[in-house]
Amino acid sequence: MHVFKLNVSRRLFRKLHSIPTAGVFSSTIMISLNFKKSADGLLPAIVQDYLSNEVLMLAYINQAAWEKTLETGKAHYWSRSRNALWLKGETSGHVQIIHQILVDCDNDTVVYRVEQLGHAACHTGHRTCFYRRVEGDGLITDETLVFDPELVYGKK
Amino acid sequence: MHVFKLNVSRRLFRKLHSIPTAGVFSSTIMISLNFKKSADGLLPAIVQDYLSNEVLMLAYINQAAWEKTLETGKAHYWSRSRNALWLKGETSGHVQIIHQILVDCDNDTVVYRVEQLGHAACHTGHRTCFYRRVEGDGLITDETLVFDPELVYGKK
Repeated sequence: MHVFKLNVSRRLFRKLHSIPTAGVFSSTIMISLNFKKSADGLLPAIVQDYLSNEVLMLAYINQAAWEKTLETGKAHYWSRSRNALWLKGETSGHVQIIHQILVDCDNDTVVYRVEQLGHAACHTGHRTCFYRRVEGDGLITDETLVFDPELVYGKK
Repeated sequence: MHVFKLNVSRRLFRKLHSIPTAGVFSSTIMISLNFKKSADGLLPAIVQDYLSNEVLMLAYINQAAWEKTLETGKAHYWSRSRNALWLKGETSGHVQIIHQILVDCDNDTVVYRVEQLGHAACHTGHRTCFYRRVEGDGLITDETLVFDPELVYGKK
């Protein structure tokens, strides 16, 4: 059982703990994001560790991914490469448990504050996708790996 | 004078302190991002406070904004509403001093770790653009303002 911050929504809490919601959900999602803001109808979701505030990754959501995230309490995205709804962790098991969601001033970007199961968000095995930093005219790579991608995803 | 983390790039340090670079800059930017990844040629830049790790905002960059940021050490973006290169803080004076830049695994998203002058990143006067959080089927707003937008930007 996960430890929740007090401000996790009652709805997410119920979902994550499989507590029946007895008609609490309306069929209409009340929080409407401005998906028309971008040409492709996708909005960026910044993914941040809910305890350390580390930025783990950025992915894109459409209305379906947004609703699925709100309904399940697990981060869903729209995969631009596969053109499909994507439950993060569906292959690796490294699901992102939503602890809090923030919405920006323009309703066109969200922050998912998550607990990253498996401790790594990046398909390369790094803790975060942002494992390289600008240094002079080049990039310095943090080589620390949480897992071996071949073991998790299989050989490519 | 700003206090820098040790890992601020020598190049940015020189620029910010107006130290002549004596041919250190190449005319070619070595760090190439994949601007072709998006339909409109823009990539998201996540803006994070360099000390607290708080996510302050998200904006978009094109090649020109990216180069200007690297060259000046101040965050530049491409304004989608004005369709123009945008030095953050050009109106308000609330410039973002770059302390570190992170690049993701796909070269299509960056994190600007910044010192936010004026202490507020959002045009609404909030510290961060993400001043609303999902709670149940609605949004809870943090009403704390750092500045009065009318005083900074004038009446709209």
